[in-house]
Amino acid sequence: MEYDNRHNTRRKKRVVIKLSGSIFSQGASRDSIKKYAEMLFDISNSVQPIVITGGGEIARHYINLARNLGSDEANLDVMGIEVSRLNARLLIAALGDEAYSPVPKNLEEISIAVASSKIVIVGGLHPGQSTNATSALIAETSKASSFVNATDVDGIYDSDPNANSNARLFREITVNECIEILKVESTMAGRYDLMDIIALKVIERSKIPTRVVLSDIDNIRDAVEGKDIGTKIVTIKKQS
Amino acid sequence: MEYDNRHNTRRKKRVVIKLSGSIFSQGASRDSIKKYAEMLFDISNSVQPIVITGGGEIARHYINLARNLGSDEANLDVMGIEVSRLNARLLIAALGDEAYSPVPKNLEEISIAVASSKIVIVGGLHPGQSTNATSALIAETSKASSFVNATDVDGIYDSDPNANSNARLFREITVNECIEILKVESTMAGRYDLMDIIALKVIERSKIPTRVVLSDIDNIRDAVEGKDIGTKIVTIKKQS
Amino acid sequence: MEYDNRHNTRRKKRVVIKLSGSIFSQGASRDSIKKYAEMLFDISNSVQPIVITGGGEIARHYINLARNLGSDEANLDVMGIEVSRLNARLLIAALGDEAYSPVPKNLEEISIAVASSKIVIVGGLHPGQSTNATSALIAETSKASSFVNATDVDGIYDSDPNANSNARLFREITVNECIEILKVESTMAGRYDLMDIIALKVIERSKIPTRVVLSDIDNIRDAVEGKDIGTKIVTIKKQS
Amino acid sequence: MEYDNRHNTRRKKRVVIKLSGSIFSQGASRDSIKKYAEMLFDISNSVQPIVITGGGEIARHYINLARNLGSDEANLDVMGIEVSRLNARLLIAALGDEAYSPVPKNLEEISIAVASSKIVIVGGLHPGQSTNATSALIAETSKASSFVNATDVDGIYDSDPNANSNARLFREITVNECIEILKVESTMAGRYDLMDIIALKVIERSKIPTRVVLSDIDNIRDAVEGKDIGTKIVTIKKQS
Amino acid sequence: MEYDNRHNTRRKKRVVIKLSGSIFSQGASRDSIKKYAEMLFDISNSVQPIVITGGGEIARHYINLARNLGSDEANLDVMGIEVSRLNARLLIAALGDEAYSPVPKNLEEISIAVASSKIVIVGGLHPGQSTNATSALIAETSKASSFVNATDVDGIYDSDPNANSNARLFREITVNECIEILKVESTMAGRYDLMDIIALKVIERSKIPTRVVLSDIDNIRDAVEGKDIGTKIVTIKKQS
Amino acid sequence: MEYDNRHNTRRKKRVVIKLSGSIFSQGASRDSIKKYAEMLFDISNSVQPIVITGGGEIARHYINLARNLGSDEANLDVMGIEVSRLNARLLIAALGDEAYSPVPKNLEEISIAVASSKIVIVGGLHPGQSTNATSALIAETSKASSFVNATDVDGIYDSDPNANSNARLFREITVNECIEILKVESTMAGRYDLMDIIALKVIERSKIPTRVVLSDIDNIRDAVEGKDIGTKIVTIKKQS
Repeated sequence: MEYDNRHNTRRKKRVVIKLSGSIFSQGASRDSIKKYAEMLFDISNSVQPIVITGGGEIARHYINLARNLGSDEANLDVMGIEVSRLNARLLIAALGDEAYSPVPKNLEEISIAVASSKIVIVGGLHPGQSTNATSALIAETSKASSFVNATDVDGIYDSDPNANSNARLFREITVNECIEILKVESTMAGRYDLMDIIALKVIERSKIPTRVVLSDIDNIRDAVEGKDIGTKIVTIKKQS
Repeated sequence: MEYDNRHNTRRKKRVVIKLSGSIFSQGASRDSIKKYAEMLFDISNSVQPIVITGGGEIARHYINLARNLGSDEANLDVMGIEVSRLNARLLIAALGDEAYSPVPKNLEEISIAVASSKIVIVGGLHPGQSTNATSALIAETSKASSFVNATDVDGIYDSDPNANSNARLFREITVNECIEILKVESTMAGRYDLMDIIALKVIERSKIPTRVVLSDIDNIRDAVEGKDIGTKIVTIKKQS
Repeated sequence: MEYDNRHNTRRKKRVVIKLSGSIFSQGASRDSIKKYAEMLFDISNSVQPIVITGGGEIARHYINLARNLGSDEANLDVMGIEVSRLNARLLIAALGDEAYSPVPKNLEEISIAVASSKIVIVGGLHPGQSTNATSALIAETSKASSFVNATDVDGIYDSDPNANSNARLFREITVNECIEILKVESTMAGRYDLMDIIALKVIERSKIPTRVVLSDIDNIRDAVEGKDIGTKIVTIKKQS
Repeated sequence: MEYDNRHNTRRKKRVVIKLSGSIFSQGASRDSIKKYAEMLFDISNSVQPIVITGGGEIARHYINLARNLGSDEANLDVMGIEVSRLNARLLIAALGDEAYSPVPKNLEEISIAVASSKIVIVGGLHPGQSTNATSALIAETSKASSFVNATDVDGIYDSDPNANSNARLFREITVNECIEILKVESTMAGRYDLMDIIALKVIERSKIPTRVVLSDIDNIRDAVEGKDIGTKIVTIKKQS
Repeated sequence: MEYDNRHNTRRKKRVVIKLSGSIFSQGASRDSIKKYAEMLFDISNSVQPIVITGGGEIARHYINLARNLGSDEANLDVMGIEVSRLNARLLIAALGDEAYSPVPKNLEEISIAVASSKIVIVGGLHPGQSTNATSALIAETSKASSFVNATDVDGIYDSDPNANSNARLFREITVNECIEILKVESTMAGRYDLMDIIALKVIERSKIPTRVVLSDIDNIRDAVEGKDIGTKIVTIKKQS
Repeated sequence: MEYDNRHNTRRKKRVVIKLSGSIFSQGASRDSIKKYAEMLFDISNSVQPIVITGGGEIARHYINLARNLGSDEANLDVMGIEVSRLNARLLIAALGDEAYSPVPKNLEEISIAVASSKIVIVGGLHPGQSTNATSALIAETSKASSFVNATDVDGIYDSDPNANSNARLFREITVNECIEILKVESTMAGRYDLMDIIALKVIERSKIPTRVVLSDIDNIRDAVEGKDIGTKIVTIKKQS
């Protein structure tokens, strides 16, 4: 259909960025959050950023307390999601009219938000789904050109870099290689390890160009611009 | 109409209890929250408790950050409400099936929740309304027999007890006397000082028996049972 | 952040206008409402109007009946809000595509409506909150440049102008002076007197330029254009 | 399936009653509404009443004004629905805890409300649907045993009783005979004449025992008890 | 009011198109749906299409099963509506960013969707209302310039063209003539025959130019362009 | 807290049952669905069933068409969920007043539905989540005593029973063993293979007794009664 091409020229490309909840923790300063907002504003000149914020330390406070009080696990997920949305509100406050307000709460609201052409800031969506998996789904449904996952490490290693000084950073890796590593390294994984397999499966089924980088303003800007930083996840077998 | 009297015998009396957000702060322990849950369970044998939780320290964390990032004040209120609802979820987790789940978000949902006969736990409702005022409105709309406001002081004084060692605690006070004190003491008031006048106006227009007590499990239980503790707010001129 | 300034040039200024419910009473004619719509359309060439409609006579009809039937007061507030929204629908009908449709029901929906750049018409929002207080909150959350309160008197007097022929109209008054007057004149106040203190507190905390004028098309247009009409409420001590 | 029969013994029969909006008009008194509430309370000892309130005079005020202001017809329907819901709130206020609160707004909410075993009070539901048709749909979906339509005339006549002194009241009539009369008498019909054909079609497809009576407390009580009053609408050809 | 004319020049005309559910049946191919999408995209250069999709064969599968299982008729309507919305999703998928997403579910959501200037795709809205009647209501509320009803016959005949080889196709017919035919031909009508009288009444009250054509891409395009095809329904007595 | 034990005696145990969508396919008969309803009614004498229905053949029809039309995968998930909810409506129709109506759409609505003590029928909940994973989450959040997964095979084998005549059925298996098998057998897996790892992870974190059985009325009844049928999934290492 002819209009397919016109789409690409008519609207900005979209980039999905997953931000770690650690940015918004109890010790977070106004200045550090403002810098993230400025970076998002800068890149919004060339692409439309869709940002998913994590829950971080305050989410863990509520989750730990509620688990000890006898909450079921699904309810804990909801509490983590609510905190991630509070974090999203902080970024929206910093971006003012540049950001879509309010925080979208499901894929339908996200598609309305994305249509506004504003910067879209989202927290988690559903219990039982990691923010990684949620981010990949949002990249899929908004037809994003790329997915930048800003984490606490500078990419994907073949073994735990903290435990193994010889651990090697991948510059490029396939989805299947990622899954293999997750299987072996499962013991060191966080709560949502396997959910990340969901994220990988979504990346694969929709062939979303993905990059894992250390959470840092310059890194994210570089990754959005396609620079070779962190680890690139590819869905087709890379050339060795 | 005849059924008016039958109501009173058919269902338990309802008591609205406002709990300070300080119970749920970063330092909160599982045990302290569990004790509040046990107290609520105990009194639910004779009355139906409807509890409004405050936001506390974590609310202040988000509000301060967002204000510094340029958020409008109404949005700050929303953030405080979201945190108070997370606190409500902690109590619901501790109460299990005894509590109504999920957290009601407006007066309509509260009236559905109250009809379930379970213990109802609510956070804040609307921006621009203190949890005190919200609690009084909920007492009004649920036709509660009494409203217990558990705060950080042990009642209402004629002047600031921290600044004035001669400050006198009222055992009983009229709504109008409260308003007079609020006018004089306005300089020392917190953020929502005048919102508390709303609470007082609601108490007056619906003649809700109200008691202000120091937040403590025994005090709340005593106040629910009608014991003479803290400060009683009356709507008709007391006998001197 | 650089984008702050660009906002101001990129979008029209916003003006919040509170309209008395008396405009929409049983005796209201099509022509009188149409004139208000035309005025709003005119000023929408230079600013984005956000209008809050009151409930008026029909609201009082329902409130009186329901109170006599035993309704709680919070429910009465809801009924007043529903009537104010019917009034909002009348203005929306008169404005056609110039107005945002449907009537927004909370601050989140208002922020979506305001982003449409259309004329936004809202009724009341929450029980326990006067339309004055609601209007001030909306001015705050939409970052309006000014708030025009169109009432049944031509401004704020130092005493009741109906009772006292020497009553003096303020051309300018501070928030604190307003509060002092409200205290003294409280006996003559309507149902929501103290709620108006909430409005004043919101005006103060967000420093919203506010003007109280007699409800009349020319007056409102003049006030929107910043002409010296009615009473101006200032948040900084005026120069005497 | 065996449980089908047990249903009928386990729960009260349900009766759908359509009340004319004229009961709630500007001239309505507290006492007249209270009497309807008392009647509903009385019959709730033996059946579960589900009541649909009309809009009446105030609905017409808004509809006329909005139509003159250029509103589309569907929006006029919405305004009529909103007024009918305000009328529903008056009855709910008069019934207190006997009534389900809040007013259900669609068939899903009605089915939750009906499950509460309380008296359910509903206004209109959808634009483009008369309250008669809505009432028939609600009777259908709630599996009501009968539908009592309390109107401004004492039953169905073979011609206009105001114009024709020989007009004959039917004691019993089939759905098809009703449709024939509606065709001939269409010139004198109100706004929703043909929507009443929808009501008739629903009555027919679900074989709902229906009676049209003059709106009066005794008449409604009699009709609910199955007494021979007003006009009975039957779906099978009556014996002549 | 002056802005009325400016509206007409400022925005595209809107055309409401009712599509038969048969397009989306079990045997439907990707290619046939894609052609409808391409046609909608083409005409969206000159008008804004608002499309209502029917339920078709899969709706009938669910309705028949549920009726046999004892479902009430109103619930069957809801199931038909849900299937029609699935069909709407197929068209939205085929149109990509050209279509408003998600599927609007009531008149309020439709008015938000229409304001986006995108192609709007809707299924059914309310139980008890045919998609024909719903389409007419949407044409009314969106102030559409015309309503094209794409059906399984090539227009309106004076008798059943399948049974009567002399059946004559109307090129133009009045609403009242349609109603007369529906009365006579009622025995052959489908489930919603009388609902179509609702559609006709809405067409009449809002004088919506309407055309009934055989469902086919060229026919629809011709009808949108105002070519003389199928049967034109007029609200004023045609000249004979 | 003392009330923990009282819960267990006060309310029926809850059992979560996942039903394959194949039960509701195009060829489904009224009788086969009615038998499932009767079985659910029977077991509801001793436990509260919470049933999750799959999408089946009609879901695949829509998903295949939409994928070919260019839909993103997340939207395909939504279409599958909508079909699974239509299937849920069929069971609700067959169960009449024994079932909770309407179909709950998220965990909050499920917790309200479960509190009604009725049989609860749910379809899918969220895109990106298999109905298996959703079922496990619902078992977790409703504190179900067991989870019966009725599938198209009679349990879990050590290899594909269709391809390998020596394939061995496990009578009991640990979660970790399941995961190992899923890894090896991944090539033959359906669309949601890895999502089932989510289901397994949820089963493990909340120690939900789970049984996989061939979808058949007697098998499900047996599994609910704890009989040794199909494959039992255990979270603690079984004794060999």
